[in-house]
Amino acid sequence: MGKRRIGLIRVLTTPDTKLLNLHGELVMKYFPSFEVVSQCIPDQPEGIHDERTEKIAAPKVLALAETMELSGMEAVIVSCAGDPAVHEASCRLRIPVIGAGRSAASAARILGQPVGVLGLTRNVPEAIVRILQDLLVADAVPEGVESTLDLMKPEGIEAMLSAGEFLVKKGAKAIVLACTGMSTIGAEGILREKLSIPIIDPVKAQSAAAWTILG
Amino acid sequence: MGKRRIGLIRVLTTPDTKLLNLHGELVMKYFPSFEVVSQCIPDQPEGIHDERTEKIAAPKVLALAETMELSGMEAVIVSCAGDPAVHEASCRLRIPVIGAGRSAASAARILGQPVGVLGLTRNVPEAIVRILQDLLVADAVPEGVESTLDLMKPEGIEAMLSAGEFLVKKGAKAIVLACTGMSTIGAEGILREKLSIPIIDPVKAQSAAAWTILG
Repeated sequence: MGKRRIGLIRVLTTPDTKLLNLHGELVMKYFPSFEVVSQCIPDQPEGIHDERTEKIAAPKVLALAETMELSGMEAVIVSCAGDPAVHEASCRLRIPVIGAGRSAASAARILGQPVGVLGLTRNVPEAIVRILQDLLVADAVPEGVESTLDLMKPEGIEAMLSAGEFLVKKGAKAIVLACTGMSTIGAEGILREKLSIPIIDPVKAQSAAAWTILG
Repeated sequence: MGKRRIGLIRVLTTPDTKLLNLHGELVMKYFPSFEVVSQCIPDQPEGIHDERTEKIAAPKVLALAETMELSGMEAVIVSCAGDPAVHEASCRLRIPVIGAGRSAASAARILGQPVGVLGLTRNVPEAIVRILQDLLVADAVPEGVESTLDLMKPEGIEAMLSAGEFLVKKGAKAIVLACTGMSTIGAEGILREKLSIPIIDPVKAQSAAAWTILG
């Protein structure tokens, strides 16, 4: 059987193909039965980092998702925990549209235990809140960390671990990472080793969701 | 790295090791990084098929899950879409407890579109209802089918396809299979080919959930 073709949308504009393909390469490493084609939205080199930039990005994500469907993709992954335009694209397209945020939240929800959300932005993404409901007990942002680059420095890692410990103190029995940038720096492994609870990685979660949904 | 050890609970009593290991072998085929040890509950050769047999099974599932945790398993999968005792075991154990029903419903929920539930029992399992909420638009049981054995006969397959078509007519854009017995007879592939919508297989869903949660 041929590989299943999936379009993956990056929500930051980059001419660097290695960076562009970073998440798609992970998805294919996890599930070799997928062929993932990554594309990025135009004119947003700084990506999505607040409500304004998310609003600007949404119609671009939707347009790219539609193009991917037309080009024969069997599913679209929006590789951003904020799930920009995922609801709109799900309604518009005939193929499955999979958002990183709702995939990660859904995996955590299966455990039926209190969940903490660790991200890089103050607001927990709406879809994550809606899926976790009363299981969402706390959220945190690593102090002094503004981008995944900061997370790669020793003080960034320390801040991330402190944020994780804070969530555990608040009662979290599992943690959802609400930023796909945390997937590429291995945040899941670092946190799991320290905290010994399930840490849900959004790129892994969206990969597994695509595999389960496409069958 | 060594394989992650997972205990898998079958809710029917059988001395037949091939039948006992049927779901566990699938989990390991899908995710070779897992070593799955299957065990069945005692004294229920007919498994769970109604409220009464589920009630009798629940304490046995809980006891088996506790034994698995003590024997060093890193997670427990309850391989039944009714998720018997999954909530209780989740609260009692320190390791993740993964139910087939909530795993399948959570995967479908990611799509954000109307979902139909196809099973072999009249009542949609509680956890599936709770997770799908307003996305659950209809449920169906193949006419004249009482067990997965019936589903392997030509008239059983016809009845299953008719039930799937009924769900699509009711607005379902995806279908959750609410019986793990449907996984072993390949119901997902048969339905997907005919209906061209995502069909969520509970054994695949619980496998992917375990992989996402264990990291």
